[in-house]
Amino acid sequence: MSDQVRIVEVGPRDGLQNEKTPVSAETRIAFIENLVKAGLHTIEVGSFVSPKAIPQMVNSDQVLRAVDHHPGYEFHVLVPNEKGYEAAKAAGAKVIAVFASASEGFSRANINCTVAESIQRFVPVIERARADGIKVRGYVSCVLGCPYDGEVKPSAVVDVTKKLWDLGCYEVSLGDTIGVGTPSKARQLLRAVAAEVPMRNLGMHFHDTYGQALANLYAGLEEGARVIDSAAGGLGGCPYAPGATGNVATEDVVYMLEGMGVATGVDMKQLVAATNDIAKVLGKSPVSRVASALNAKARG
Amino acid sequence: MSDQVRIVEVGPRDGLQNEKTPVSAETRIAFIENLVKAGLHTIEVGSFVSPKAIPQMVNSDQVLRAVDHHPGYEFHVLVPNEKGYEAAKAAGAKVIAVFASASEGFSRANINCTVAESIQRFVPVIERARADGIKVRGYVSCVLGCPYDGEVKPSAVVDVTKKLWDLGCYEVSLGDTIGVGTPSKARQLLRAVAAEVPMRNLGMHFHDTYGQALANLYAGLEEGARVIDSAAGGLGGCPYAPGATGNVATEDVVYMLEGMGVATGVDMKQLVAATNDIAKVLGKSPVSRVASALNAKARG
Repeated sequence: MSDQVRIVEVGPRDGLQNEKTPVSAETRIAFIENLVKAGLHTIEVGSFVSPKAIPQMVNSDQVLRAVDHHPGYEFHVLVPNEKGYEAAKAAGAKVIAVFASASEGFSRANINCTVAESIQRFVPVIERARADGIKVRGYVSCVLGCPYDGEVKPSAVVDVTKKLWDLGCYEVSLGDTIGVGTPSKARQLLRAVAAEVPMRNLGMHFHDTYGQALANLYAGLEEGARVIDSAAGGLGGCPYAPGATGNVATEDVVYMLEGMGVATGVDMKQLVAATNDIAKVLGKSPVSRVASALNAKARG
Repeated sequence: MSDQVRIVEVGPRDGLQNEKTPVSAETRIAFIENLVKAGLHTIEVGSFVSPKAIPQMVNSDQVLRAVDHHPGYEFHVLVPNEKGYEAAKAAGAKVIAVFASASEGFSRANINCTVAESIQRFVPVIERARADGIKVRGYVSCVLGCPYDGEVKPSAVVDVTKKLWDLGCYEVSLGDTIGVGTPSKARQLLRAVAAEVPMRNLGMHFHDTYGQALANLYAGLEEGARVIDSAAGGLGGCPYAPGATGNVATEDVVYMLEGMGVATGVDMKQLVAATNDIAKVLGKSPVSRVASALNAKARG
């Protein structure tokens, strides 16, 4: 467990995109700069989707341009199609993320096409990105359950993950989008996928809807996975259970890793400050246990 | 992981004792009956401490007498000394719990004596209980860290646990009182203690102050531990970080176990109803992730 773990901070994108209150580009930039200050080196900062569909991500080009001046840091943006790719490239993106679902029900409801069609849609995007020297990260959603189809077979996850990998993604992140996974299932899934795609190229993107995320991450770490997606403050609720918890909180992940002797390079005090700042803007308390506890201690 | 796990529900004692608002005996009785209805078979229902010191636990004799009519169920009460033992016995207690700290700082601050003195104080209590045919459970607090002394050596935990075991406790529960443990430390600790006391007689009593409890429990289960203390709704804050999370929530534990194929016999719907009822009395939302998510889904 002593080797390096890489944290991919997704708060400014996956987090804020699922918060009701849209946040201005200026505030998002300040949030990202705070996260950089806290020592997070890989940050997903925006999404080039239709502002009508997701108003929270409007002006992602502005955000990317403003923050992308830290050498050695990686700023990712989500891209849904070729149009989005054009915009991302124009804004200077060096890493983009594409996404597919492991379940047909979610694919249909979310992007109105089959899983196979969605992957097909990304073929030209990935090809162009590779030709342009832009790295592509893949996401697979609903890897441990689907709000429409219920159980999702590991073989379906393996299939989609392998396709994204074969197309040229340098890393594929496995999303427990509705947070229904439990440790042994997470472990079995990673083992199954790692038979086709190297474990070091798999990300764990687990939501904390039912409080299981950290236990699932620990199980995954034991299995050999080394990439964790998380969001400062546990930003981003669950559209399928409004009011529930969203992404696993970066603070809680860092606390676990540091406690296990895995150095993250993250300054917890700065991270909690970043979390508190954005929580203030959103008008609510951070949902992360660590931020709550450290804030409580600070109040005395 | 397929063998039985036993849940010790501590909400009515460790939970409510750490809530600011004292709750009437009637309400505590109704809460316990709801927990019984939900399928929890081992419940810590009260404490025979001075009502001046802990007003939340006043009338625990009344509570115990009212609920102790379910054959096959176990209702535990905490006992701090011989006086408390007398009262517990008079109320018909069949299982009592005694406690010691693994750290000197906590022992001094909490019960104003050394660890050795506190154990000495329990010698006559345990002797009398055994002579009276009353089972004794032991608690060791601060097993993964102390609010006064900081780090706690596993050897100190092993020492206190073994003493309680040797005195005749049928089970000793290891308390991460301030929730600072992380999975590998929890695992190493259990391994160390199990060298002296059988693993099946060790309980895991982990608080969720920093969100680590479920991950720590999973690590402990992998190590072979099979007894989990938890509180419905995650009741009971942390006196050392007011506003932070308390005991790990029974709902979250049950969700994890059932997801791993470990049958708990707990009816989740009834359990969340019990949690909601007591949360209403306390005038706050349940802190458990599962209750939040299921309540959100129920609201639609």
